[in-house]
This record gives sequence, structure tokens and C-alpha cells, in this order.
Amino acid sequence: MVVLTRQDVSDAAGRIAGRVLRTPVLEVAPGLFLKLEQLQHSGSFKVRGAFNRLLSAGDLPASGVIAASGGNHGLAVAHAARALGVRAEIFVPEVTSPVKVAGLRALGAHITQTGAIYSEAAEAAAKRAAETGALEVHAYDQPEVVAGQGTVGLELMEQTGGVDTVLVAVGGGGLVAGITLGVSGDAGDAHGAQGSGGLGGSGGPRVVAVEPELIPTLHDALAAGEPVRVPVSGVAADALGATRLGTIAYGVVSRAGVRSVLVPDDAIVAARRALWERHRVVAEHAGATAYAALLSGAYVREPGERVAVVVCGANTDPATLAAEA
Amino acid sequence: MVVLTRQDVSDAAGRIAGRVLRTPVLEVAPGLFLKLEQLQHSGSFKVRGAFNRLLSAGDLPASGVIAASGGNHGLAVAHAARALGVRAEIFVPEVTSPVKVAGLRALGAHITQTGAIYSEAAEAAAKRAAETGALEVHAYDQPEVVAGQGTVGLELMEQTGGVDTVLVAVGGGGLVAGITLGVSGDAGDAHGAQGSGGLGGSGGPRVVAVEPELIPTLHDALAAGEPVRVPVSGVAADALGATRLGTIAYGVVSRAGVRSVLVPDDAIVAARRALWERHRVVAEHAGATAYAALLSGAYVREPGERVAVVVCGANTDPATLAAEA
Repeated sequence: MVVLTRQDVSDAAGRIAGRVLRTPVLEVAPGLFLKLEQLQHSGSFKVRGAFNRLLSAGDLPASGVIAASGGNHGLAVAHAARALGVRAEIFVPEVTSPVKVAGLRALGAHITQTGAIYSEAAEAAAKRAAETGALEVHAYDQPEVVAGQGTVGLELMEQTGGVDTVLVAVGGGGLVAGITLGVSGDAGDAHGAQGSGGLGGSGGPRVVAVEPELIPTLHDALAAGEPVRVPVSGVAADALGATRLGTIAYGVVSRAGVRSVLVPDDAIVAARRALWERHRVVAEHAGATAYAALLSGAYVREPGERVAVVVCGANTDPATLAAEA
Repeated sequence: MVVLTRQDVSDAAGRIAGRVLRTPVLEVAPGLFLKLEQLQHSGSFKVRGAFNRLLSAGDLPASGVIAASGGNHGLAVAHAARALGVRAEIFVPEVTSPVKVAGLRALGAHITQTGAIYSEAAEAAAKRAAETGALEVHAYDQPEVVAGQGTVGLELMEQTGGVDTVLVAVGGGGLVAGITLGVSGDAGDAHGAQGSGGLGGSGGPRVVAVEPELIPTLHDALAAGEPVRVPVSGVAADALGATRLGTIAYGVVSRAGVRSVLVPDDAIVAARRALWERHRVVAEHAGATAYAALLSGAYVREPGERVAVVVCGANTDPATLAAEA
């Protein structure tokens, strides 16, 4: 069993420094922070985990790297591979839109469209990796990927001087697990105290996982005592639509006592719209999901509570903001 | 004659603190910074000058404040007035779109639509102010307005630790003049030296004004030795379409040796698109104009040169990003 610690996240931060952007934080009201991770290279946080996986692997095989995803993960792996000058093969299901395929191709990736749904493309990618020796990059359930995503949390603590609560969206759980590690034991300067550095130890902000009601991977895992298969649908399914929580993520967040808050799709749509109208931030639905908890009242901020909301992706057509009006 | 100094900008910063957002800076490549001022309240920098004007005036008259603008300035004055609990009257020309009028009304402003073009609405607003005693807030040619906009420059120096060059769009010149004052004599920590603090003194970064070819207010003023009337058209005319540079701005930027760089409309359109595609930043055309200088090669960055680009507004329909594809 893999046990990740905050040190793994710190190590990842050193490894990927200069490869990823230190995305800014916007304090939209006193004590309310948006971490603008949708401004990241490739349009989402996923590139952090991708770089950490590639840069942890030592010499990369001549066959390069391989991943399955027509979405943010695929874009991130293609981006990281190009930046490091290695070959990227991306497997996507046949239903993937031509626009997304073109986006991957523009990053120099070799595309294979196969399988009716994601899991079939993923199986084909795994088979191909076994044949070629290419390095597989999983969308969330690899230690290097989780540690890389956690660097969002390290930055957030530095940039805000510490918060009480971090709201973060969940699909496969790589981001929420990484951030849980990254902020653990770190109360930040604002409170003048440092915790023990232990996972879930005193002094760290609480991490609240926000999930669409229609994709309750963490909620159902916590109820079942292990990751379980969930139905996947709704507006954020293209980015949060994992069929079950990652094993690594489950271990991290269940030990840390991370709670799940569910939001309906209409709250996600309203949050995405409000991010634009109030704050001129364009996010995809998944990227607006954490904010939806606050806006809808699914999570109620206490007076004086310092809250950070992670806006985690913007691979979306901005025209759809108008269409939803 | 009004002589503004950096101290006026510092005073403005103290006055408006807590009323405006400290907008974040994104370092998109080593030494290349975007100041994300389009994330500001009301969607543009204009709210800084509006707050400084209102908060400098002492007790505001019962008749409140008055401004002429169907665009960013009108939104900013309406926002600031609402925040301070005073009445706002906004005069807009008859051609102003119903969407913009609705936006102003949503901020609680009293709207008068009059005149075929902006200057007629502005005349009517001045006449009304003389009758009611309301405080006029000019879009650019008032000392408090220029000083307020300059707080963008102060923040920029603090956030970047100093740059060599600041690229900023010009319409009436309030922002470029304010920033010129705000950054004067401030080389920042990056260079380990502080200048004299004097306008255009040693040690301050150079400010480069970027203008649409179709609205060359500063370019023509510098050529003529004074502000002159220019034709106004093109994609950025709704926000940069002043018919002549402000007198205060002319005094500040001509003394400081600010140069004007002209960009064609197609470069502005391409820059707006690139801000979205590369950086997930949505700006209006005016807001992308400074970036257009860099992208088009109208301004060429030297190796190692630290450059800040001010992205100054996002009051736009994001759907038009797709329409221009």
C-alpha cells in the first residue's frame, strides 16, 4: 500500500517548478479566496500531476508516454510530453468530439480513437503500454499524480497566508487527495501557528470535497467504506466523471476525515455563470463545482471563516456561458 | 494646472483599499507578467478612479454623483455609488444597447438616454450636474480619477518585485497616466535599486502606451504637441474611443517620455483570442490591446526584459470569442 505524505507533495513542487504556472489567488471578499488554477498550462491542474509523473520516472522510454483521456488529463499529458520532448500517445473513445481530438493533435500527440466508452479506451491504452513499454500516466490513481496535484495546496497556503477551509471538486479524487496532503499540518501565517505536519494533524485547514449529486464517487465510497462504482452523468461528467474514486485518494481522504458535500447540476451551472458575471472568471462546469457549494448554501461559510475555493479547469467553450443564460 | 505625483497615487491607494480588489498577477513565462485587472469589480480598472473621486469629495451631495458613459466608466461609477450608498445618475447616448442599460440599472443607477452620440450625452450630464449639484465623475480627465487608476501601477510593482517595462492600453489616457505616476522612481526589488521617486526619474520602468491605429489619441497628441481630436472607430472603440487625450494625461505622459505604439484591429482581435486560448483569460478588445503589441511584434521584448502587460477590462460577451474564430 502506498502511503503518501506532505513531503511527497513538497518534493513534487521542487520537481515541477518552472514547468507549471504558479496560478494566482484572487481575494474576492475579505477572507474568501479563489485559487485560479483554471489559468494553468493546458487549462487545468492536471498538468501538475503529469509533469510530476514524467519527471519522477528517470529516463523515459523511447516509446514515450501513454494515457487515456479525451479531456483535461489527455491535454495535460500531451502538454507535458511536448515540453519534455517525448512522444505522447493518447487513447480516446470514439465518441470524443473532433474539437478535442484536434486540440490533442495540435499538442503533437498521437491519437488512437477506440472503444465506445472511456473504460474501453483505457483498456486499449493499458494493452498498448504493455506492448511498447511506454510510461502510463493515470488520470488520478498514481502516487506521483496525486503528489503533483497536491502542489495546488502548497501554493494556496503560501499565497493566502493560511485559510480555515479549502473547497475542492472531486472526480477520481487526485486533486482533493493531493491538496489534503499539501495543506496538512499547515495553519499558515494568518493564525500564527504551525501544526504537526502530520496528515490530518492539528493546525491544517479542513478540506471539503464537493461533488455533483450525479457523480458521488467520494460520498458513496465513504458510505461503503471503500471505493465503489457509481453512475456517471450530468454537466460535469466530462471532467469529473470517474466511475469510482481512486484507491490512493480514498486512503488519503478517509484517514484525514475529508467530508463530501453534494451539489445538484443546476447549482453547478449557476456557479459557473456567477464566476463569469461577478468575477470575470471563465471555468468549465467541473471547475465551478467547488464554488457551487458556497453559492448554493450546500456549504455555509461561518462569519470570519477564511475559505479558499479551487477553480480547477477552463477547458470549455466560452460561448456556452451565453447559451445557458 | 494640476500637477499630480506619485504621492497622489499612494494616497489614492490608501483611500480605496478594501473597496477595490487587489487583482492578481500571472507570470505566464519567466519575466512576462499579466496584470489581471479585468477581474476587478465592475469588470475594469475604472472603479479605482471612481472610488477615489467619490471618497476624495468629502460629504457627497444629496443629489449624488453623475457620469456619462454606457460602458466601463458608467458601470464603475454605478458600482462605487451603490457601495457607498449614494445616488448615481448615468447619462448614455440613445444608441446604447439595451443590455448595457440593463446592466447599469441592475446596479441601481438612474439612467437617462439622450443624444445621438457620446459627447451629446456628456453635455447633457454636465448641464444636469450644474442644476442638481451632483458630483461629476469624468471618465479620465480629473486628478482623482487619474490617481485612482494609478494604483494599478503600485500593485504591479509590489506583486512582480519590479519590471523593466509596462504595456498599457490608451483611450482618454487616465490609466496610462496613473500608472506612469504609480511606477515612477520604482525599480522594484528585482533590481535592488530605488530611483529618485521623481516622475520619469531614474530607476522607474518604462511605460509603453498601446493604442489602436484607429484611435490614436496619444500618438496624435505627441505629434501635435497637445491633445487633438482624432477619428474614432474599430473593435475597441466602445472602451478606448475617446475623441481626444485628457489634458492631465497629456501632461503626465509627455513629461515622462511615454511612447505610443500603434496596433491594427486584427492584432487586437488575435490578442484577445490568444489570451483565451493560451491563458484562459477573457478580455474585451480594449483589455487585450496592450497584449496585442507584444503578440504582433509592434513591441519587441528584449531577451531577459521583464515586461508587465495590463489586461484592463472584460465587459464583453464571451460568446464573441467563438464568433471570431
